[in-house]
Amino acid sequence: MSDTFWQDHPADALRVRPGFRLADIDPASRPGTTAAKLEGQAELAASAQELRELQEKLFAQSREGAPERLLVVLQAMDAAGKGGMVNHVFGQLEPYGLQLTAFKAPTEEERAHDFLWRVEPQVPAPGVIGLFDRSHYEDVLIQRVRGFAPPEEIERRYGAIVDFERRITNLGVRVVKIMLHISPEEQASRLLDRLDDPEKHWKYNPGDVDERVYWASYMEAFQVAIERTNTEHAPWFVVPSNSKWYSRAAVQRIVISELQRLSPEWPAVKFDVVAERERVQQTLGISWP
Amino acid sequence: MSDTFWQDHPADALRVRPGFRLADIDPASRPGTTAAKLEGQAELAASAQELRELQEKLFAQSREGAPERLLVVLQAMDAAGKGGMVNHVFGQLEPYGLQLTAFKAPTEEERAHDFLWRVEPQVPAPGVIGLFDRSHYEDVLIQRVRGFAPPEEIERRYGAIVDFERRITNLGVRVVKIMLHISPEEQASRLLDRLDDPEKHWKYNPGDVDERVYWASYMEAFQVAIERTNTEHAPWFVVPSNSKWYSRAAVQRIVISELQRLSPEWPAVKFDVVAERERVQQTLGISWP
Repeated sequence: MSDTFWQDHPADALRVRPGFRLADIDPASRPGTTAAKLEGQAELAASAQELRELQEKLFAQSREGAPERLLVVLQAMDAAGKGGMVNHVFGQLEPYGLQLTAFKAPTEEERAHDFLWRVEPQVPAPGVIGLFDRSHYEDVLIQRVRGFAPPEEIERRYGAIVDFERRITNLGVRVVKIMLHISPEEQASRLLDRLDDPEKHWKYNPGDVDERVYWASYMEAFQVAIERTNTEHAPWFVVPSNSKWYSRAAVQRIVISELQRLSPEWPAVKFDVVAERERVQQTLGISWP
Repeated sequence: MSDTFWQDHPADALRVRPGFRLADIDPASRPGTTAAKLEGQAELAASAQELRELQEKLFAQSREGAPERLLVVLQAMDAAGKGGMVNHVFGQLEPYGLQLTAFKAPTEEERAHDFLWRVEPQVPAPGVIGLFDRSHYEDVLIQRVRGFAPPEEIERRYGAIVDFERRITNLGVRVVKIMLHISPEEQASRLLDRLDDPEKHWKYNPGDVDERVYWASYMEAFQVAIERTNTEHAPWFVVPSNSKWYSRAAVQRIVISELQRLSPEWPAVKFDVVAERERVQQTLGISWP
């Protein structure tokens, strides 16, 4: 970690703690650093190698049986920067070790099952970094705000989520949940940007405007969901995201620190290196055609 | 395309044509360019933006219903550079638009089904670039060389592959098949490199040495498989791969040219831009907390 960029580690500064109040967090703030945009972009590039090396070790050790893996859950209001986060931070990882799942509105078949039915198959295998763009938290966010499920069902889900995340944690999955937090003014500005640029029209969804009137209800739903599911084993981080460069640098640093907690190491191998070298050399005579 | 780097386009120079003989292709050659390593690496970086823009358009237009997508099949002997190709060329793509499938030795359940049973679910959706690290071609390569299936079954599979690839082509999938071609001497040198570097031990598999004695049989199996399945709708390219930088630059250029054939465009949208701008502006008053 560059000592000059972060004065406070974002994994500390942005972690949700008891007494957390979402309303107290300014989406335009940049906790942990006094640096500006250009330095933030430089920090992102400078830390990429650290991120990739941790990923490669995590992947490598899983080949020899290590169970550790990471699951990063991204939740946010529309236009808060999930897509850019996936491309600019997680896009730096090797494709073999990244498993991205974008959860959409549930299908009829999915709705016929419990809400975790479609999530379980997406839990990453050992060595893999799983990334959820939206997740099982939609089932306590939009479903609560829009009344798609009755209150007692929403209640049941908070507990089911805690149990689910504890179970997979015990199998070696480190679960990290991140809310990208923007202001409604910033969202409007980004929606207008999409409308102003024909190359971004495809990213614009008229339904996003309809959701804006529920902003306060969404924030309340986030507050409750975070309170009810913020555990030692599966913590929440709320990342102020009005500055894209800040939120990317912060999320990258949080991911690096969570990977470091897993202490991945180059695995010891089960074959005899000297004997194998001889075996290869004995085949040096083969040639073709 | 940089005019100075490629004198002949690799999509022409490396495409398999009638009368193709694998034995005539020198894995150390670099058809299409007289440039050297540093220029090759520069070309790879310089073309990355072109690649990403095509991918983004392909993905964007699929949101409005365009059926086009690309499926790239990578086949090669061990240590020919598939992994590096995935990371250094395809790793430059946005994670949303890339679907990587690494096919391993078939499981018991997979063996109980026809060989295409596990392949069909991995055909990419519209807008997505599918990437197969090994594929249904293993079923006519290793299975032929090692006699895991009888000759008449191998025969059946060539036809089944052609039919399968024609069917998905007609749905909008452009199928491109690439053999990374190295010499047995180069393979030995790469295996020894892995043994010399403890950080690469995990990539070494003693079984790879056992396969080396079958080299000539593998080349024969590649020759026949390529002959039997090289079609207008799903062409083969053989990429000399003793130079990693050359094979990466060539594959990237082939992928770019195949994406260009699909002519992806920013999609026209179905909403009224002016009306939507007004709708967003009407919500500017909302605020929170």
